[in-house]
Amino acid sequence: MSKERIVDILELKEFCISAFSKLGVPKEEAEITSDVLVRADLRGIESHGVARLSRYIRRLKLNQMRAAAKLTVVKETPSTLLVDGENSLGQVVSYRVMEKCIAKAQSNGTCLATVKNSNHFGIAGYYAMMASDKNMMGISSTNAWPLVVPTFGREPLLGTNPISVAVPVARQPPFVLDMATSVVPIGKIEVYNRRGEPVPLGMAVDGKGRPTTSAKDILRAVYDLKKGGLMPLGGLEETAGYKGYGLAVLVDILCAILSGASYGPNVGNPQDPKPSDIGHFFGAVDIESFRPLNEFKEYMGKMTDSLRNSEKAEGQSRIYLAGEKEHEMEEERRKNGIPLYYKVYESLAEVARDVGVEFNL
Amino acid sequence: MSKERIVDILELKEFCISAFSKLGVPKEEAEITSDVLVRADLRGIESHGVARLSRYIRRLKLNQMRAAAKLTVVKETPSTLLVDGENSLGQVVSYRVMEKCIAKAQSNGTCLATVKNSNHFGIAGYYAMMASDKNMMGISSTNAWPLVVPTFGREPLLGTNPISVAVPVARQPPFVLDMATSVVPIGKIEVYNRRGEPVPLGMAVDGKGRPTTSAKDILRAVYDLKKGGLMPLGGLEETAGYKGYGLAVLVDILCAILSGASYGPNVGNPQDPKPSDIGHFFGAVDIESFRPLNEFKEYMGKMTDSLRNSEKAEGQSRIYLAGEKEHEMEEERRKNGIPLYYKVYESLAEVARDVGVEFNL
Repeated sequence: MSKERIVDILELKEFCISAFSKLGVPKEEAEITSDVLVRADLRGIESHGVARLSRYIRRLKLNQMRAAAKLTVVKETPSTLLVDGENSLGQVVSYRVMEKCIAKAQSNGTCLATVKNSNHFGIAGYYAMMASDKNMMGISSTNAWPLVVPTFGREPLLGTNPISVAVPVARQPPFVLDMATSVVPIGKIEVYNRRGEPVPLGMAVDGKGRPTTSAKDILRAVYDLKKGGLMPLGGLEETAGYKGYGLAVLVDILCAILSGASYGPNVGNPQDPKPSDIGHFFGAVDIESFRPLNEFKEYMGKMTDSLRNSEKAEGQSRIYLAGEKEHEMEEERRKNGIPLYYKVYESLAEVARDVGVEFNL
Repeated sequence: MSKERIVDILELKEFCISAFSKLGVPKEEAEITSDVLVRADLRGIESHGVARLSRYIRRLKLNQMRAAAKLTVVKETPSTLLVDGENSLGQVVSYRVMEKCIAKAQSNGTCLATVKNSNHFGIAGYYAMMASDKNMMGISSTNAWPLVVPTFGREPLLGTNPISVAVPVARQPPFVLDMATSVVPIGKIEVYNRRGEPVPLGMAVDGKGRPTTSAKDILRAVYDLKKGGLMPLGGLEETAGYKGYGLAVLVDILCAILSGASYGPNVGNPQDPKPSDIGHFFGAVDIESFRPLNEFKEYMGKMTDSLRNSEKAEGQSRIYLAGEKEHEMEEERRKNGIPLYYKVYESLAEVARDVGVEFNL
């Protein structure tokens, strides 16, 4: 994937909006969904950006997702929320629930929300940052179709189940942890495969559950055998892979067991015509309910600076905080535009032809 | 450490209670603290059990910790709590705060609590399980004196900062995730050292921040140079060690930045005469606020069974859920007593002589 094309952010977003609108997604909802997608590209998380547009479009065209969002609050207390996403676009569901979560935390100190019957929501960090933008702590998580094997197992029963937490910092970008609970995404194994390089031991297992360095064996297991898969964060048992496994299960508990959504093996994948029934989990924490916001943010800055300014390992010149690389990428791309792989650019052109909207990026 | 001595659980707890009582810890608080310590031994987490009694006793004798607990609620909303532990025993502070957290979640759906100016609290899982024992979800976390280096760093600036979440399950032991955010504890490096075995690459770095397999180099760096240290969960950057690093920082945010406790490099270690000023974070979530408890617990059981009963990796005969091994160890030890390393047994005899209580375990 060598060739790239630089596209303008606003034009890219407008294009996504027009495609969604053409399929009956209301204007504001098309804007939300497109903003989440483009934000992923801005932050360098291309796997969750406009590269996925065609999949959303296909599901909408086939009426496998609801175009005009419907959200039903199933249960609510002053600090909790259970929402049925009614098979609407995951981004719209998540944006609306997080808005509500933030408002409730503003009144009551904290709010935790769980969501069932939703769809792929893009980058988890987007919703956590909605809270940090408002000077609160934000939490965001989702389950996903299964690609990860439990420790000592060989069946993919867990999604890459990301967890994101965003926290505001004085005079610095927010701390934004946004991590899959697997060591790497499946796309990373595909990169090793294309390069013909061995996969570091402890990233994935073959169809018999054996840790392997062969990208080919891993991909064959995942795509053909529906066995084997990625290892949870930590990798081998010896290096504490059971912790990542525990975190992945925790995400399924918060997103699916608490909400009634499908868990692990039952979550639909994007190729599946049936509703994905993905579950999400969100939280907002009002910092002022604990201590003065300014004090908190200054103290955050002191702590993050003490990490940043500490002595570097031999051969290293910089220590990062979570979200810092993505923040710098975003600043750079807001100035210079977003480089799209030609393959992704072509998939957008294809979407344009398919739904009948103009394409001149 | 070969020799072991089997001791009776109740007698072991009574002994701890008598030692604490002798130093002015009120009866009920001595019972709480002793129960937390013995529970660690019951669950096979010996590093956090009665092996630490002598350290607590020394701090109490030297008046470096408050014997009769004092807790001050600094700020409170219906779903949040900030407590000053006033340098009391960490176990008593944590037990009391978790009790309050559970009560508030019962009334309001959820409660998050943060604590400053506390001390080492033992196993994180104990407090999370207080909530799961009451059919709620429990969260527990603490920061700790620094032993972990940030990704690309060489200074130990983060504790092993554990996170625990406990969740009730129908007809099964609770799901209890209780994990340090480092790959392994420092004690594990000491085991490799004693055995003369190489440390797997990605567990720790030497004084220059270089990943190394030499246990000797790691321990020399940590104890003599006060440089180098453990690596965060995930290990090397290539295998996503930055995720464990992010989780460790998150724990410092929840426990210290939100409460005003000391973070990472400023947390006192047990040898330090100054107050440790450790921070904790607790949470309780009322499941009934989301969905009927029975439904939730049955669904949990279905999910955990689907993991447990899935196909095993070649050469493996069993897939565990978080907390399952510890639960079985606890059942076994409740029946047969707790095996103590002779060195630990001797340290208890020394405590007995030191504070002047009977010792006949």
